[in-house]
Amino acid sequence: MSGLFITFEGGDGSGKSTQAGLLAEWLTEQGRTVVRTREPGGTDVGVEVRNLVLHHRGDIDPRAEALLYAADRAHHVATLVRPALERDEVVIQDRYFDSSVAYQGAGRVLDAKEVRDLSLWATDSLLPDVTVLLDLDENLARTRLDAADKPFDRLENEKAEFHGRVRAGFLALAEAEPERFLVLDATRPIDELAAAIRARVEAELS
Amino acid sequence: MSGLFITFEGGDGSGKSTQAGLLAEWLTEQGRTVVRTREPGGTDVGVEVRNLVLHHRGDIDPRAEALLYAADRAHHVATLVRPALERDEVVIQDRYFDSSVAYQGAGRVLDAKEVRDLSLWATDSLLPDVTVLLDLDENLARTRLDAADKPFDRLENEKAEFHGRVRAGFLALAEAEPERFLVLDATRPIDELAAAIRARVEAELS
Repeated sequence: MSGLFITFEGGDGSGKSTQAGLLAEWLTEQGRTVVRTREPGGTDVGVEVRNLVLHHRGDIDPRAEALLYAADRAHHVATLVRPALERDEVVIQDRYFDSSVAYQGAGRVLDAKEVRDLSLWATDSLLPDVTVLLDLDENLARTRLDAADKPFDRLENEKAEFHGRVRAGFLALAEAEPERFLVLDATRPIDELAAAIRARVEAELS
Repeated sequence: MSGLFITFEGGDGSGKSTQAGLLAEWLTEQGRTVVRTREPGGTDVGVEVRNLVLHHRGDIDPRAEALLYAADRAHHVATLVRPALERDEVVIQDRYFDSSVAYQGAGRVLDAKEVRDLSLWATDSLLPDVTVLLDLDENLARTRLDAADKPFDRLENEKAEFHGRVRAGFLALAEAEPERFLVLDATRPIDELAAAIRARVEAELS
């Protein structure tokens, strides 16, 4: 037995929490100790950082915001993730630095490569063993969520474009590291997805 | 007229605030608009970050702490220092990234070069025009502060060694960038120091 670090990535509504929960359940049945966690906000420092970013009056400089999230990540990895891995536990986490890179890249304020380097410094280069990307077409996600099916206004179109860039960012990251990423079509049935994820994790464990 | 960014560095008790105040007074008499500021804690975000670092229960991971201070610096530079320089004002600041580098280098937990790079990223590479280093022998500072003159215990000896490494760190930074640094012996009379600083700033302004 040895520790295993598994992250789930993808846009909102792609089913990350559902699949992370099913995987945790299965691993627990296999006799593994599982730590379920998330970013941002997985530690007390993280909660304070999140409050600072979300409830601050007025704008926070984009670099300051990226640094605050990196601080949360550094503390989270140092105090929760690494110790669990050293105890040979399995850590299953919703979102990690791939999210920062994909969202920053889509927002085009900061350089995505620099944001990645910042996260790697923050975590002393802790990479996940497996990253499950639940890939979902942004318009399909939109159509599903938008029961009223009313036409897009300008802002909604911009939002769709943004989410399209986030999705493209995730896919580019997966393409750059095919060993680490398992890319799955999020429209597939829940059970099928769960089985595919289990198969990959099982291979990793043996 | 153009903006000018002046920082004061040196150990505690070296006279930074006194000299910064005298310089600000003189520049104001010359008709310049002066912004006096300090790190950490020069903005509302900075105050919150400082509270988080200082009043958090339990340890904060060293990388997380460095990132939090870098976030404070990023916000401070973006919202206060740069706008003032763009209005052609003079910014006089107690401590900037040279302090981070000298103290981290002395503490030997994180790599000083990495801490410098982090600060440069945070500030989008804003370097001071002039950095005044008030250099003071750490044992002299200690003797002056310690009126009772009692012998050092182990912890006090360690502290003295630490402050010796901080001092050496500042001097190494000054040696690496002689154009930017004005190094002064902090034991010289206040008026003499003020005159030397004025002369350097005057040269920079003309």
